[in-house]
Amino acid sequence: MKTLAAASAKPANIGALAAQFSRMREETAALVQPLEDEDCCVQSMPDASPVKWHLAHTTWFFETFILERFEADFQPFHPAFRVLFNSYYDGVGDQHPRAQRGLITRPSLREVWTYRRNIDQRMQQVFVAPLSDESAAEMATLVELGLHHEQQHQELLLTDIKHLFSLNPLKPPYKLLHTLPNADQLREGLAADALPDLEWQKFDGGVVEVGHDGEGFFFDNETPRHRQFVEPFSMASRLVSKGEYLAFVEEGGYQNPLLWLAAGWEWITQHKLAHPLYWQKSVSQFDSAWQEFTLNGLQPIALDEPVAHISFFEAEAYARWAGARLPTEAEWETAAVAAGSAVHDETDYFGQVWQWTTSSYAPYPGYTALEGAVGEYNGKFMVNQYVLRGSSCVTPSGHTRLSYRNFFPATARWQFSGMRLARS
Amino acid sequence: MKTLAAASAKPANIGALAAQFSRMREETAALVQPLEDEDCCVQSMPDASPVKWHLAHTTWFFETFILERFEADFQPFHPAFRVLFNSYYDGVGDQHPRAQRGLITRPSLREVWTYRRNIDQRMQQVFVAPLSDESAAEMATLVELGLHHEQQHQELLLTDIKHLFSLNPLKPPYKLLHTLPNADQLREGLAADALPDLEWQKFDGGVVEVGHDGEGFFFDNETPRHRQFVEPFSMASRLVSKGEYLAFVEEGGYQNPLLWLAAGWEWITQHKLAHPLYWQKSVSQFDSAWQEFTLNGLQPIALDEPVAHISFFEAEAYARWAGARLPTEAEWETAAVAAGSAVHDETDYFGQVWQWTTSSYAPYPGYTALEGAVGEYNGKFMVNQYVLRGSSCVTPSGHTRLSYRNFFPATARWQFSGMRLARS
Amino acid sequence: MKTLAAASAKPANIGALAAQFSRMREETAALVQPLEDEDCCVQSMPDASPVKWHLAHTTWFFETFILERFEADFQPFHPAFRVLFNSYYDGVGDQHPRAQRGLITRPSLREVWTYRRNIDQRMQQVFVAPLSDESAAEMATLVELGLHHEQQHQELLLTDIKHLFSLNPLKPPYKLLHTLPNADQLREGLAADALPDLEWQKFDGGVVEVGHDGEGFFFDNETPRHRQFVEPFSMASRLVSKGEYLAFVEEGGYQNPLLWLAAGWEWITQHKLAHPLYWQKSVSQFDSAWQEFTLNGLQPIALDEPVAHISFFEAEAYARWAGARLPTEAEWETAAVAAGSAVHDETDYFGQVWQWTTSSYAPYPGYTALEGAVGEYNGKFMVNQYVLRGSSCVTPSGHTRLSYRNFFPATARWQFSGMRLARS
Amino acid sequence: MKTLAAASAKPANIGALAAQFSRMREETAALVQPLEDEDCCVQSMPDASPVKWHLAHTTWFFETFILERFEADFQPFHPAFRVLFNSYYDGVGDQHPRAQRGLITRPSLREVWTYRRNIDQRMQQVFVAPLSDESAAEMATLVELGLHHEQQHQELLLTDIKHLFSLNPLKPPYKLLHTLPNADQLREGLAADALPDLEWQKFDGGVVEVGHDGEGFFFDNETPRHRQFVEPFSMASRLVSKGEYLAFVEEGGYQNPLLWLAAGWEWITQHKLAHPLYWQKSVSQFDSAWQEFTLNGLQPIALDEPVAHISFFEAEAYARWAGARLPTEAEWETAAVAAGSAVHDETDYFGQVWQWTTSSYAPYPGYTALEGAVGEYNGKFMVNQYVLRGSSCVTPSGHTRLSYRNFFPATARWQFSGMRLARS
Repeated sequence: MKTLAAASAKPANIGALAAQFSRMREETAALVQPLEDEDCCVQSMPDASPVKWHLAHTTWFFETFILERFEADFQPFHPAFRVLFNSYYDGVGDQHPRAQRGLITRPSLREVWTYRRNIDQRMQQVFVAPLSDESAAEMATLVELGLHHEQQHQELLLTDIKHLFSLNPLKPPYKLLHTLPNADQLREGLAADALPDLEWQKFDGGVVEVGHDGEGFFFDNETPRHRQFVEPFSMASRLVSKGEYLAFVEEGGYQNPLLWLAAGWEWITQHKLAHPLYWQKSVSQFDSAWQEFTLNGLQPIALDEPVAHISFFEAEAYARWAGARLPTEAEWETAAVAAGSAVHDETDYFGQVWQWTTSSYAPYPGYTALEGAVGEYNGKFMVNQYVLRGSSCVTPSGHTRLSYRNFFPATARWQFSGMRLARS
Repeated sequence: MKTLAAASAKPANIGALAAQFSRMREETAALVQPLEDEDCCVQSMPDASPVKWHLAHTTWFFETFILERFEADFQPFHPAFRVLFNSYYDGVGDQHPRAQRGLITRPSLREVWTYRRNIDQRMQQVFVAPLSDESAAEMATLVELGLHHEQQHQELLLTDIKHLFSLNPLKPPYKLLHTLPNADQLREGLAADALPDLEWQKFDGGVVEVGHDGEGFFFDNETPRHRQFVEPFSMASRLVSKGEYLAFVEEGGYQNPLLWLAAGWEWITQHKLAHPLYWQKSVSQFDSAWQEFTLNGLQPIALDEPVAHISFFEAEAYARWAGARLPTEAEWETAAVAAGSAVHDETDYFGQVWQWTTSSYAPYPGYTALEGAVGEYNGKFMVNQYVLRGSSCVTPSGHTRLSYRNFFPATARWQFSGMRLARS
Repeated sequence: MKTLAAASAKPANIGALAAQFSRMREETAALVQPLEDEDCCVQSMPDASPVKWHLAHTTWFFETFILERFEADFQPFHPAFRVLFNSYYDGVGDQHPRAQRGLITRPSLREVWTYRRNIDQRMQQVFVAPLSDESAAEMATLVELGLHHEQQHQELLLTDIKHLFSLNPLKPPYKLLHTLPNADQLREGLAADALPDLEWQKFDGGVVEVGHDGEGFFFDNETPRHRQFVEPFSMASRLVSKGEYLAFVEEGGYQNPLLWLAAGWEWITQHKLAHPLYWQKSVSQFDSAWQEFTLNGLQPIALDEPVAHISFFEAEAYARWAGARLPTEAEWETAAVAAGSAVHDETDYFGQVWQWTTSSYAPYPGYTALEGAVGEYNGKFMVNQYVLRGSSCVTPSGHTRLSYRNFFPATARWQFSGMRLARS
Repeated sequence: MKTLAAASAKPANIGALAAQFSRMREETAALVQPLEDEDCCVQSMPDASPVKWHLAHTTWFFETFILERFEADFQPFHPAFRVLFNSYYDGVGDQHPRAQRGLITRPSLREVWTYRRNIDQRMQQVFVAPLSDESAAEMATLVELGLHHEQQHQELLLTDIKHLFSLNPLKPPYKLLHTLPNADQLREGLAADALPDLEWQKFDGGVVEVGHDGEGFFFDNETPRHRQFVEPFSMASRLVSKGEYLAFVEEGGYQNPLLWLAAGWEWITQHKLAHPLYWQKSVSQFDSAWQEFTLNGLQPIALDEPVAHISFFEAEAYARWAGARLPTEAEWETAAVAAGSAVHDETDYFGQVWQWTTSSYAPYPGYTALEGAVGEYNGKFMVNQYVLRGSSCVTPSGHTRLSYRNFFPATARWQFSGMRLARS
């Protein structure tokens, strides 16, 4: 196994890190501002977590992996929190059952804020405490991991609250309650001015390199950078839109088993699914109209926006219906580089919807997990999941990488998951 | 069907009723005082409801059954509440799914308090509005029903919050947070000074009369008063204690199938039950000790108190082990009368634990439900449930009657349910 | 507890019993004649058992309760059978899991026939072996119990095979394959020549006696004979017909929650039930027609026959729709006596369909189970079940008694269960 | 999509095919010889099918895909069989629910044998009927597919009957009942004379070719042959043995979460798994011994044989414990070629146990399914499954190919699934 210190050899700029830490923690807090205490406590399904749990767990991460190691005379804020807010780190010890996170009304949200402030202050003290260069480098690497971890939970916090609100018959909006300072970061979807024609960009294939090259921050699952042999392929110039997906819905896509993987067909049949998550058809005596639940409440479907909240199964079936297929990870990464990685915020490879690939989530050749409990971060989930590439409209800025590998089961729909077509 | 008006023929004293209404609603509010907003939102299991839901549903009851009928120019407080806070009245319309009551973070608790205040004020206006005698009598009867309904939910609120807190690893106490004005009403259990010897009181049986005679308030399921033939029997002079039940636990009661009804044995086997709900054995290297979770937090088991939180199955098995049986409803009522109904607060027939009987919950001969949607109050639950008699330590004062029929499935344990033995 | 010997004081006529034993065992064998080996092996649902299991379990009953006690040098036929074919007698030891009875392809049916022949021969030897009067009386009582037990399984064998065949898309008939010697005993339903008008027979009520008086054979649950107080009531002169029930179906009975017990409504909603078990509507482009699956295969519904295969919930809802109610056990027994118990085969109280009562299955006052493992025969099932009275078209002749108490959960439908209406 | 005809361009030798057809069908029949009719009817779990269903479904395959197309005046043997014995071909129409295959006691086994004989005779008539060259080639390709399909079901028949018998407390053996002509083909496991030392064979990697080259028969999922880039790796010289796996069991492998994928740990915890399927520890007062259920009944564990009946999760955890990993498909195929494909029956790459790879079952680049309903053969299962390579001790001879891709979910254990280790 590799050590984190080895992964970040350059001398750590602790001062910059401390400032970044403060900013990141404030950004999380800002996301909670529009919410009631009660919104923060409830768990809408086992896959989702309460907002309060996100706030506490990300704090637990810093307490457990940085303070416990680098703080002199470390004392836990509350001994029970070690179990309560441990997500899945068996190396740290027991965990409160995931499906019961929503029963934890105590500590209250107020107490969790106290927890956060306490850990934040102690982190700042650790930042200014004298450390050997080696320890400083190691700590810097762990803090950086914690900050990216915090960003992941910023995105999950939004997708989880969207799911919770969608189950409320009052369909409450998330944003309209308050004006947020950074509200533009929290918008859902980027309204395309006008949907451009879909073009097919050709690639020659051959031996290509994929994965992270080791400069800057990365998760272990993005490494090692390695070669793959890729056949010639074409990639769609833009994402599949809601309007295009609606045609699939209305032309019977969910009624034709021949379009679906067998497990996908069984799943949509069992759950009576006939459209993406959050879509609904309002029917009156005069007409019917498709609507979608968004972070801004119930809205008419924005046909030119990229389709979101579809499962791998739905993406795969749509692609077959459209005479295409999903790309592999290597194809996606190759095409994304070509589309202009230097300016990746300006392409729709990023910042709109995560894009399902046909690649099962598996270790790259030569992959080794980090040493210690943080080694459980990624590796142990590499089975029965599919990789999504890119980033979404609720991914925090600065959390985007060409080599980033997001992953979810083939049935997951509550993330901003969409697709880009490929062809052989 | 009988009408409510017919059930309450005497001229209504609306002024007294208005005062009683205010007092009852304040008592409910006092129960919520020790709780955080988050405590009030979460549902710990489908059988239990969030505190906030109790607050809103009892309000909905007055809005739907009194204001909608007797208020001039009635407008609903919020149109969606008619569905959201309808428990099970099909005659009123659709209901929000019971198991999803905990997902309703909006309306917030604050908004539900506003709802309560609004309905309370409008109720007071209706109380002083001019009404025909007939309408006044009808309204009085419905208000009285609503007040007893509110008391039922006061008890459920406490049993539900106890269940929620029991699932929290921090085992938070309900009472110690705040000093309540009427804290003595909320105590859990009546510590017996010393456990008296159990004596057997003999009854001759014959044709007895049971059920409510129609004076004062009653639920429809307590009527009509009617005759039953009862064989000679003996009744225990006091309730079964926790210490006595502990002997059953420690002498292998939960390991011997011959003591149990077949369905009870299957149930304890499947759920690995080996003691009452809320009991736990703390084991250290030095010793082991039985504890119980109470509204005051985790405590050593109070051996002289009446056993509580047992199911019908457990009560029935204990009785067999003890060489006795559970009483029937008619036996219980006969013995309770003899024990001194006029002073029933001074006997342990009331105010300690509900007492399982062997009687299935069924209509009394000639039973008819009330007219209209309130007719769904009791009758439609008369299957696969068993009757409990008496009242518990968290039953509001004034909610106790000799003929009162409480009822729960044979597996229910989260109520303060215990037992009194009988013999043929 | 009472002993079986005490229950049968008269000197045992062992010779007659031996002949009765042979005849009864042959009647069971005759029922299996129309079946393939495979039909006898499969279990269609946990409530039902394979035919082969019925054959083996009834044999096990004689081996375990008679041979093991009265045969000199008893050796079990096969040691594993003690567990394999024990239904639910914890006093005898472990049991093969009920839901896995259908996995037992070995012993094969052929081997089970060998088992039956072996035990039958040994029983005949025991019948002629010298025994003290006391032992002979005890044995006679146990054999008699075993024969009535065998008759119960004859009925279950037919209802279970009907259920199995109903799930086969080929809808195979049971009878047409072979001509049975006693085929008229196995007919399903007694076609009423013409449906007589329904009349209401009035009863004065008062203190009545119910239960078995101890002459001849009875199950322990029918005793002791005891007094009950019954209010005046009326009883329908005949059973509810399929045609009458069809009107309930077609006039929206299954769509109106106000007709149903809450648990019944939840159950039919969850399972999407809209008619009795085995009914189906065949729809073509020209017309639609109701059919029912019978032991003679798929047939047009015989409208004048008594409705069968309805649950307690359906019977109870129908009664409410019809402005009536189900009778109690005591009412049913009182009316059946009046209808002429001496000639009970000529009334429709018997021999057509079991009739749901509103009485929960509970011990009669002073009930005690038999001593030893046979004491588990009845008592331990006295919870969450409802009593059916009478007998059905597939009840063996000689298995009918005025005091007979059949019992099933409120959702059971695969028995020939129907209803007779009552009114207060 | 490609057509089957295109896949098999050479002139069809129909005579040889007819002989091969007869032989293959007889081999299936021989496998059933040791079984009782009842053994053939029961379904032990939804993943498994009754023997009778295998017999009928393989017949249905020839009737539907060959006779229906090439027989003059085709008439179905029985119209209901089209649905009853359709496994999963949506292009053919509806299917009887998979989990209810065991309820089909009719048609009886005898009738299914009649069905087989009828279709076999009609197939022989079609073999000698005049056909155009193109039709003959197309038919030959479909027959060849049907024969390989039959072989797959020969293997499943044995693994399914093993599973059924394992659930019977009598633990019946499959083989000892009768002497089979080809009994040596049905042996379970190849007892290694002595377990050779495990050696690591090194491979340089680079761009390799994998997949079928199109000569002879193949399934569509093995194509197209294509290039992959492989890093240098080492492959174990032999399979992991039962003795080696037992060390993992006894040294706490199933108790250490850090060895397992998260989903695997959750699965073994939920199902309380602590050893391979069919293993059991018999404990007496004197000693304890590991046994395994085999097609020859319960036996002491043969420590030198390859471990079998382990899931992907178990294989993956064992590999981690052993400081190694599972190979990818490309690594396995590369190493198997090097081990001597020409003589593959003499290596343990084949004929012992299927070997889990770390490769998710996915389409090869450029994969297209066959045209028509047979196109559903493979492609629609390419999700959430993992590829196994090689063949097992119950794989029919002639069904082995270097490029063969078997696939099962990560939890499947009832196949003869084992593993070979790899290292980077």
